[in-house]
Amino acid sequence: MSGEPVIIVKIGGGAAINLAGVADDLLGLTERVVVVHGANAARDRLAAAIGRPPRVVTSVSGYTSVFSDDEAIDALMMAYAGLRNKRIVELCQVRGVNAVGLSGLDGRAVQGRRNAGIRVREGGKTLLLHDNSGKPTGVNTALLGLLLDNGYLPVLTVPIADEGGRAVNSENDDVVAVLARALECTRVVQLIEAPGLLADPADPESVVARIPHDRLAEWEGRAEGRFKRKIAGLRKLCAGGGLEVVIADGRGPHPLAGALAGKGTVIS
Amino acid sequence: MSGEPVIIVKIGGGAAINLAGVADDLLGLTERVVVVHGANAARDRLAAAIGRPPRVVTSVSGYTSVFSDDEAIDALMMAYAGLRNKRIVELCQVRGVNAVGLSGLDGRAVQGRRNAGIRVREGGKTLLLHDNSGKPTGVNTALLGLLLDNGYLPVLTVPIADEGGRAVNSENDDVVAVLARALECTRVVQLIEAPGLLADPADPESVVARIPHDRLAEWEGRAEGRFKRKIAGLRKLCAGGGLEVVIADGRGPHPLAGALAGKGTVIS
Repeated sequence: MSGEPVIIVKIGGGAAINLAGVADDLLGLTERVVVVHGANAARDRLAAAIGRPPRVVTSVSGYTSVFSDDEAIDALMMAYAGLRNKRIVELCQVRGVNAVGLSGLDGRAVQGRRNAGIRVREGGKTLLLHDNSGKPTGVNTALLGLLLDNGYLPVLTVPIADEGGRAVNSENDDVVAVLARALECTRVVQLIEAPGLLADPADPESVVARIPHDRLAEWEGRAEGRFKRKIAGLRKLCAGGGLEVVIADGRGPHPLAGALAGKGTVIS
Repeated sequence: MSGEPVIIVKIGGGAAINLAGVADDLLGLTERVVVVHGANAARDRLAAAIGRPPRVVTSVSGYTSVFSDDEAIDALMMAYAGLRNKRIVELCQVRGVNAVGLSGLDGRAVQGRRNAGIRVREGGKTLLLHDNSGKPTGVNTALLGLLLDNGYLPVLTVPIADEGGRAVNSENDDVVAVLARALECTRVVQLIEAPGLLADPADPESVVARIPHDRLAEWEGRAEGRFKRKIAGLRKLCAGGGLEVVIADGRGPHPLAGALAGKGTVIS
């Protein structure tokens, strides 16, 4: 892979994200880009349509997560690698952006380690539940390089491949962190359904314009719930140093161009 | 792309196809392979689960086909490019076969032309219905060659890209025909839920061992319905000459190895 820097654009899985606007902005970029996207809204809609809501479990350490049985992986393949991945690729192709959609399984684009299990309390006992979830540990940089060097835009999503090549669900934030390190990225854009990180979650005007790397620990200490996990993810992502992360609104007319112009929250 | 011949393996979309057995056999092959697969069983199961059966229309010329509105394309992306594509890739990856799943949209791997419309009779009038369906016209041989030359096994499915890059549904037989020509294949294997082409559809013992190219027209004249369309497809596929097609049972323990050993019906 050539030495040109790569920008990772993480597109949240919310229904309000303006995917067409992101594709418009991708056409205007001269930098090499890898897209990583979620699809939780599509997954939830599918789950509701087939009458099988995702099973959510709470670990003894207090984290809630989706329990990924085989049916959940089916749903993941349909909503993430199927519907949303191909609709994003289509929006790109319509604009002349030569996108190639890949799950982590394809060419083991994203490889990981299957989780040992989730420790839960049930009926006064601690049980170890096994599911198809895991943590990404590496990236097939040769495959991504092959695509980037030949003018393709990789569009990645879950599932990823475990040690044995089996499909496991994974947090997209972890995928982005492993990818950023493997591709030696200097810039990550995260497009979400909010104007940026908010000092007061109830007040959309309270966007934090900038958080220096060395203040993330302090923010993490103050935060709660999902937001705490988000900051913890940002700490992990920025741990290597030298990475600028922009968290910006994915809902406006030019979400990506706005983010690259510094709108939203810049972590640097 | 190097001059080595490519075998196209078309895997039918039936639920009884032994995908694990096909993946076992793929591991044993030294030839370069491109897989094209259907997913009609998965699509029908999804449609039933969400309570939206595919809309089937009959054209004035007597052909029945699925009417591909936007929701049908969503379902196609989920069942074909999502669920079945990624499960096939997973079965390959588990065995060390480095599969990469692609829809025709990805890198415009399979490009086509959107259909003008389906002429139907409704209430005594002839109407032209527009849907998202089309005919493949070309293949991104550069992308497929890039993958094959680097040891990846492309696993292709619908939707394909129309002239403008939008998703359209297409017959897999037509995709295989365009692909065979573009890759200058000499061998196509079609794995179905029957022991081969049957002289008597009701008698599984009546497998036709061989049909020479120059007898296909005669067979087409005798055939009816779906089978007639199948033979018409084979005629189109073999029109360029020099192509051997094996239609074999996808349900046994070694479907692909069996087909390559000459089991089923050989068109040559």
